[in-house]
Amino acid sequence: MRAVIPYKKENAKSRLSTVMTKEQRETFVEKMLLDVVATLRKGGILNIDIITPKACDVKKEVKANIIEDDTDLNDCLNKYLSQKEEPILIIMADLPLVKFIHIKDIVASKADVTIVPGKGGGTNILFIRKPENFRVKYYGSSFENHCMIAAQQKLSIRVYDSFLASTDIDEPQDITELLLHGQGIAKDYAEKRFGKKEGKGRVKISPFN
Amino acid sequence: MRAVIPYKKENAKSRLSTVMTKEQRETFVEKMLLDVVATLRKGGILNIDIITPKACDVKKEVKANIIEDDTDLNDCLNKYLSQKEEPILIIMADLPLVKFIHIKDIVASKADVTIVPGKGGGTNILFIRKPENFRVKYYGSSFENHCMIAAQQKLSIRVYDSFLASTDIDEPQDITELLLHGQGIAKDYAEKRFGKKEGKGRVKISPFN
Repeated sequence: MRAVIPYKKENAKSRLSTVMTKEQRETFVEKMLLDVVATLRKGGILNIDIITPKACDVKKEVKANIIEDDTDLNDCLNKYLSQKEEPILIIMADLPLVKFIHIKDIVASKADVTIVPGKGGGTNILFIRKPENFRVKYYGSSFENHCMIAAQQKLSIRVYDSFLASTDIDEPQDITELLLHGQGIAKDYAEKRFGKKEGKGRVKISPFN
Repeated sequence: MRAVIPYKKENAKSRLSTVMTKEQRETFVEKMLLDVVATLRKGGILNIDIITPKACDVKKEVKANIIEDDTDLNDCLNKYLSQKEEPILIIMADLPLVKFIHIKDIVASKADVTIVPGKGGGTNILFIRKPENFRVKYYGSSFENHCMIAAQQKLSIRVYDSFLASTDIDEPQDITELLLHGQGIAKDYAEKRFGKKEGKGRVKISPFN
């Protein structure tokens, strides 16, 4: 079993640019990556690959194998999957709320494919028992894409239901969830920059000045 | 064991007013309420109370006891809890993604208090084993409030981790989740009014004209 994390640091998380500078966003994704790698290791996955367009963008302290590939996310992951003959867990780098217990639960799935949906139709985690013939299709409504691809290949599907694992950090309101429900170094980083603002409706983040 | 659903129909869901008229929002909350009641019954809870400021706003087809109370949400729920000597499940009416299996899981909790957080710091479901002395504090960061109240009373807490149960339908992007992951009559209603629009980032709803 292996895990693979697609990772891009340069100008990452552009949809957070209203609340973080480019430098802050790049530091933030670095922290989130470290959280995800630590969670995987705690969950028992020690073979971890990071696919990134620029190998030098991954800090040396990240305990993982680095694969440099600057092609499109789908192309590089599909190339990766086609070369693998063991179960593969694809996990996004922006999931600091995932806990090791989720990882253990997911890789214990009997289903051919386990999918953790992201907010707004995304796919946060994909666990594929036989990756050779599976192909991914990220972007847009990738949750639906992956369900369809699995169904076309007559693979059994488990949709994994977790608020924490489904919360990818992509937009400012997601940082609220990190502050409220997180732990780890990405949360610490966010906590130094944002407070919580209560008002009518949902709690929002409020940048410290 | 009883369940209680706070419900307000009149001019409900004002944060959906950019995508639904007042009449549509009122019909929509009615459908969501019917979904929640059906889910509770399927989950084995047959004693269901609905607290509402206007009894005539609850359709006759809703199989539940109606309690008319036009005081503030916290006041009426705290009055309700103080009179109860059996475990109480407080569930919001805007949770059409909750499934009966969640209800079964939650009421099987051994903890004194089980909390399902809502998006942005809310509380979607509260299961309280001994309600006489528990007090609720909704609005704002109610998830934190309820954790604190339970801790002050030295009650054990279980935070229930479910994407479906944590997704309350309050803002337009929540309807995307209903379209993608829902079932039931509120989903059918939404599906007649909205399509899904893919683009950069998360899928959004796109109203039909």
